[in-house]
Amino acid sequence: MTGAALVALGERLQGVCLGRGLSVAAAESCTGGLIAEAITSVPGSSGYFLGSVVSYANSAKAALLGVPETMLETHGAVSAQVARAMASGARERFGADLAVSATGIAGPDGGTPAKPVGLTYLGLADAQGVDVRRLNLDGDRAANREAAAAAALAWLLERAER
Amino acid sequence: MTGAALVALGERLQGVCLGRGLSVAAAESCTGGLIAEAITSVPGSSGYFLGSVVSYANSAKAALLGVPETMLETHGAVSAQVARAMASGARERFGADLAVSATGIAGPDGGTPAKPVGLTYLGLADAQGVDVRRLNLDGDRAANREAAAAAALAWLLERAER
Repeated sequence: MTGAALVALGERLQGVCLGRGLSVAAAESCTGGLIAEAITSVPGSSGYFLGSVVSYANSAKAALLGVPETMLETHGAVSAQVARAMASGARERFGADLAVSATGIAGPDGGTPAKPVGLTYLGLADAQGVDVRRLNLDGDRAANREAAAAAALAWLLERAER
Repeated sequence: MTGAALVALGERLQGVCLGRGLSVAAAESCTGGLIAEAITSVPGSSGYFLGSVVSYANSAKAALLGVPETMLETHGAVSAQVARAMASGARERFGADLAVSATGIAGPDGGTPAKPVGLTYLGLADAQGVDVRRLNLDGDRAANREAAAAAALAWLLERAER
């Protein structure tokens, strides 16, 4: 599923992070490993990429990333709050300079009127704090996963270059 | 990078695991997220797949999967011992019925005479214990990653069907 566009983003990210001495981690839900896979498809990625937690189940978001269970119950797994907590948890547990997160409803099932298929939140944590972005994607499952991963990689690149 | 063969294995695994009520987790090093990505590319995979730790750095193998640092130092990350510890750690931390691990040297760099490019260990943990398999792959980086992921998925399927 990893398209050339994702790999190209991974190559650019690697160049910037190796040049600046930045380490990177991820916390993935809807992307299901696609962010890590795009990054690690590039030889030499072990020089800056520490890893990713693919926390598909809510129990994994709590156990492996420290997302509070009350937050998952109150706001739902697809929420700005959980995206922030996933990014913070990944940054802390991997000991990374930058950590990105993605949580969304890839489809075809799981959508509701309030949270339709394609709704996705990204989080980005660095030493200054955590930011969040909301995406409204309109593709099928594969396209939504790839678009979310591309947006996450592009955001990492933007932050690494800053 | 995810080929149709990997997705087909994911579809078969999902059918068996949903039918038998088995939950699955993974711990990935050389596959870099490919196992999780193949599994989660199938709609409905959240019904049995809990998640994966992509532990690319040794520090992540220790912090997120509980692999002892002395084991990493003594045997190296690409070893039968570490493959077992990764699988056990993933099974325990995700609370899964079955957990598979993959650690290897995908290439093109990182090989040595004792541990050449393509050397890969898989671990599989269930309630009875942990088993390990050794693979000697002979492809390029992309082919080795895909072959390791396919072998891991096939082993999960074999165990789930047992």
